[in-house]
Amino acid sequence: MSGHKLVLIGLGHVGDAVLAHAMSSKLFSDIALIDANTQLAEGQALDQHQATALPGVGNVHVHVADYDACADADVIIYTAGPSIRPDQAGAESRNLLAAKNASIVREVMAEITQRTRDAIIVMVSNPVDLLVHIAATEFDYPTEKIMGTGLLLDSARLCRIVADMLDIDPDFVHAAMLGEHGATGFPYMSGISVAGVSYPQFPEVFGIDQLLSAEELMTRTNYAGMEVLKTKGWTSAGVAASAITLAQSIMLNSKIVVPVSTLLCGEYGQHQDVSLSVPCIIGENGIEKRIEVPLDAWEEEKMQQSITALKKLIASVSKK
Amino acid sequence: MSGHKLVLIGLGHVGDAVLAHAMSSKLFSDIALIDANTQLAEGQALDQHQATALPGVGNVHVHVADYDACADADVIIYTAGPSIRPDQAGAESRNLLAAKNASIVREVMAEITQRTRDAIIVMVSNPVDLLVHIAATEFDYPTEKIMGTGLLLDSARLCRIVADMLDIDPDFVHAAMLGEHGATGFPYMSGISVAGVSYPQFPEVFGIDQLLSAEELMTRTNYAGMEVLKTKGWTSAGVAASAITLAQSIMLNSKIVVPVSTLLCGEYGQHQDVSLSVPCIIGENGIEKRIEVPLDAWEEEKMQQSITALKKLIASVSKK
Amino acid sequence: MSGHKLVLIGLGHVGDAVLAHAMSSKLFSDIALIDANTQLAEGQALDQHQATALPGVGNVHVHVADYDACADADVIIYTAGPSIRPDQAGAESRNLLAAKNASIVREVMAEITQRTRDAIIVMVSNPVDLLVHIAATEFDYPTEKIMGTGLLLDSARLCRIVADMLDIDPDFVHAAMLGEHGATGFPYMSGISVAGVSYPQFPEVFGIDQLLSAEELMTRTNYAGMEVLKTKGWTSAGVAASAITLAQSIMLNSKIVVPVSTLLCGEYGQHQDVSLSVPCIIGENGIEKRIEVPLDAWEEEKMQQSITALKKLIASVSKK
Amino acid sequence: MSGHKLVLIGLGHVGDAVLAHAMSSKLFSDIALIDANTQLAEGQALDQHQATALPGVGNVHVHVADYDACADADVIIYTAGPSIRPDQAGAESRNLLAAKNASIVREVMAEITQRTRDAIIVMVSNPVDLLVHIAATEFDYPTEKIMGTGLLLDSARLCRIVADMLDIDPDFVHAAMLGEHGATGFPYMSGISVAGVSYPQFPEVFGIDQLLSAEELMTRTNYAGMEVLKTKGWTSAGVAASAITLAQSIMLNSKIVVPVSTLLCGEYGQHQDVSLSVPCIIGENGIEKRIEVPLDAWEEEKMQQSITALKKLIASVSKK
Repeated sequence: MSGHKLVLIGLGHVGDAVLAHAMSSKLFSDIALIDANTQLAEGQALDQHQATALPGVGNVHVHVADYDACADADVIIYTAGPSIRPDQAGAESRNLLAAKNASIVREVMAEITQRTRDAIIVMVSNPVDLLVHIAATEFDYPTEKIMGTGLLLDSARLCRIVADMLDIDPDFVHAAMLGEHGATGFPYMSGISVAGVSYPQFPEVFGIDQLLSAEELMTRTNYAGMEVLKTKGWTSAGVAASAITLAQSIMLNSKIVVPVSTLLCGEYGQHQDVSLSVPCIIGENGIEKRIEVPLDAWEEEKMQQSITALKKLIASVSKK
Repeated sequence: MSGHKLVLIGLGHVGDAVLAHAMSSKLFSDIALIDANTQLAEGQALDQHQATALPGVGNVHVHVADYDACADADVIIYTAGPSIRPDQAGAESRNLLAAKNASIVREVMAEITQRTRDAIIVMVSNPVDLLVHIAATEFDYPTEKIMGTGLLLDSARLCRIVADMLDIDPDFVHAAMLGEHGATGFPYMSGISVAGVSYPQFPEVFGIDQLLSAEELMTRTNYAGMEVLKTKGWTSAGVAASAITLAQSIMLNSKIVVPVSTLLCGEYGQHQDVSLSVPCIIGENGIEKRIEVPLDAWEEEKMQQSITALKKLIASVSKK
Repeated sequence: MSGHKLVLIGLGHVGDAVLAHAMSSKLFSDIALIDANTQLAEGQALDQHQATALPGVGNVHVHVADYDACADADVIIYTAGPSIRPDQAGAESRNLLAAKNASIVREVMAEITQRTRDAIIVMVSNPVDLLVHIAATEFDYPTEKIMGTGLLLDSARLCRIVADMLDIDPDFVHAAMLGEHGATGFPYMSGISVAGVSYPQFPEVFGIDQLLSAEELMTRTNYAGMEVLKTKGWTSAGVAASAITLAQSIMLNSKIVVPVSTLLCGEYGQHQDVSLSVPCIIGENGIEKRIEVPLDAWEEEKMQQSITALKKLIASVSKK
Repeated sequence: MSGHKLVLIGLGHVGDAVLAHAMSSKLFSDIALIDANTQLAEGQALDQHQATALPGVGNVHVHVADYDACADADVIIYTAGPSIRPDQAGAESRNLLAAKNASIVREVMAEITQRTRDAIIVMVSNPVDLLVHIAATEFDYPTEKIMGTGLLLDSARLCRIVADMLDIDPDFVHAAMLGEHGATGFPYMSGISVAGVSYPQFPEVFGIDQLLSAEELMTRTNYAGMEVLKTKGWTSAGVAASAITLAQSIMLNSKIVVPVSTLLCGEYGQHQDVSLSVPCIIGENGIEKRIEVPLDAWEEEKMQQSITALKKLIASVSKK
């Protein structure tokens, strides 16, 4: 019986949360853990292994592994490398982080591609668009089999902000962020709706006083993660749920439609030279389809800013 | 510990399916079964009681009861009375069914209101809009505490039809039916979207050849239930999932936004004289808010047809 | 992505309940339905297909199929053929049923074995031990890949009876039925325990007045199904949960330990000439291990009665 | 609608894991977070709040609170205070930790008892038996409404060790630890069974070479947590699953039977002067029943050692 194996690379705070979700997801019978700190990976495996005996926790085979575990993996979730820290808001820190994580992802992809090009790879580490781009362009890995959680999480944050305006379940807010998982990511204003009612109609239909502008929604959404960083010290709940949401749609071929980071192949005039988040259909083949949603002038401008910012970032860590 | 009690009235095919969903929902610790055929209710209770010992099935207290069980119920789901049969497509048959089920719901509401006006009542039996209307207007029961599954199921059928066009998960199709749960129910065309893309844009964005017209969508959706009736003999999966979807949002105060049948209180110019499906926010108080979505000319015409058809039906079984 | 396909053969009352559980199990992305009554299978597929659009129901591909669907099935659940009816308690009726269902299972196994010998087959139809025996001995199908729900359901009923004595969750009663799924099946008295306390110690430790004897437990457990039959008209909740419990342990390689019907290969001195229920470890290979639990004198006597009864039944429908 | 509110006190590593489980448990509509570090509590609330918008995550109201939130809480889970660190194995460190956590629990219980004596309190912090004892004896709080996760987790670890011997799902190993959650806790050897087969019969029935002795099982189980501490730095998966297992049985009145830490009221000759783990039935009233399982000579000796050790610990932090 194949079809139930996860390899999780990176067992820090985010990996810890992804692992907890994966264990209770009923998606996997075999979860292999890889971390440069093998003692940490062992501790995580042991903690979860012991928990499998509690009522309601499945008997998942969770264990430390090396890269050979990738050979028959169905999904690989990548959370390795250092994360942004609350005190690293400056451009210099972010560039150092990008260089460091670019280097790590290159090492890991070299290991993975010695064992498989079949697994669907879900990137979580940051800058996620950069890591997706490196993985998708430098290793001859099938483009559709690499995606990043990217703006899936930010879209959830946007939905939450809108849901709080109306006091409703955010699953019933239809809204997405597009572009960079970072400062230039923007809300797809044309597409925001609740119960078929578009965003500009909210005050009249829902009786709310006033709307946040596009720029305000953008700022608040993009700052939402930093708020968590500054108070909790790291973010994990949302990103873990994002990664497992994608894993489930891959494993069960559900074909959910969500924004994920992907190498553009013609969309918005970009031909394999930038990776960012657009709505995609996610299934057993990974990215089953990228959806090029129509943009208005403001959205078009923002999209160009994302493209420009990401191309600059990509160039900064070019192998040449 | 209160807050976990379901009373299920009616244990035929639909009640059987609702019960199975309720047992595995983790929402209820106590499920009381009422049916005029007490032997059937006993058999259903026993079948489920025995199943509680299987791994993964919770130890729910499921048992036969009389109407006294309603006194501390949190949710009451009503599936009593005869159902439409495949051979009863004619107007005469439907009128007889309406008269019969109007009579039964009056008897049951008289019993319920002797014990409680606190429980949230979810009507499933047909004609659901009529039964909601009788329950909500003749017994001094709080209006917001009565709802019918109504077009929640038909909306799911509509989403499924659209999802099949695009080969995506129907949870990511945003579409609703409005009006009567019956021949005049209509798709809210203005509000259909996927990934923020509106229905008329589908051919261009998703590369599909052609779209079903509003009338075609309406016909196919409204006929979908009859197709199941004619082949399986009864419908149960969708309606059971609909009822438990509502129960969950009530029990966990989730505030989902879905079309349910409700007594209109000013919406579309109707003041407590007709009940039909509009999008509502569902929470611990039942219907937390009815949403009067803006209609275009075609939708307005269809809404009036639903109102007219339902007023006629209501008049036909008036107590006077 | 393989590893998520169910073929369900037989869509009557039991198949209907199994299907509902399978749809919400998160185990399958593809469920193929086969029934001699193709219209019924179509109706079941359509009813469930429409329900996939409800919130919380996964986008499972559920569809009518022919036997070719077995070629890449991971699990096949067999509920085909007529069931015992409440008015068929007599020996003559049961023999007719056995002959009829033996004939049907032979036809179906001939179809299956033209397409696969890889799928794990879970028999549900009755007499389940007979059908397991035919499937496991006449078609060169791997022995460990065929099992019957058998006494898994009766064990649950036994646990429920004991749990009702103590007012506890039956998942915490450890008890099993052994032998025939029928009149000679018996409780494994030596093994009954709660919280590590053995059955004879219950009155002292739990302060209950008196214990049911082994014979009383046996009678009540074996009659439990008939009680449901007589009141509800069919049994479905328990048997559906049983079938999906097995499917989950197969799909996720959980290695649960439960009594299922299996061809004995040396256990209790029987060498491939009788099939009945003993505790087994269930994993991705089907029956990973049969456990020959030690029997006391009463249990040994009962086991011999089961063996005798089943050998007689098997002989009665021998192909020769 | 009452009956769905959790107050979680303490948001460190353990609280973080408990919170993640609670969010996905479908048990709660309202989760109030209290921590002396209010910024940390805010960060945790925000991280989870944002995640509620992901598909499949419920719209739970998760928020920072003060002790007034306890007034209508159904369950209070207590994870406050410092934890054992890997470098604190020595007796002196443990005594300091006990004194510190005794002090904190007294402060918190004073706050809680100003608002409620209705909520069921689940203690997780260590030394858990001491904290249960203080809470249950010094504040006139109903005895049955206070329990500690105690040996529920260690029992799971014991089951896991036994399951690994037989390569089976640990949910099907029936085994419990009794006594102190600490060095003197011991396996209830008389009660260990799999498929009704007692521990001494394992080599013959399961064909394994040799058994771990009682002392070996005791040592390995009691050391299992320290192994995780030393490698991962903290333990969280098992203890979080333990706390939510108890919460579920309380909220849904499931009446599971598991060892939890409780004030003894006559069991083993102890009359409200020591708290430790014995098997209990857990329901909506908290501890519905303590089960005094019969002990053999070795178990009796170990029980006395646990009682002695815990009485000494209790005396060391006595308020007088």
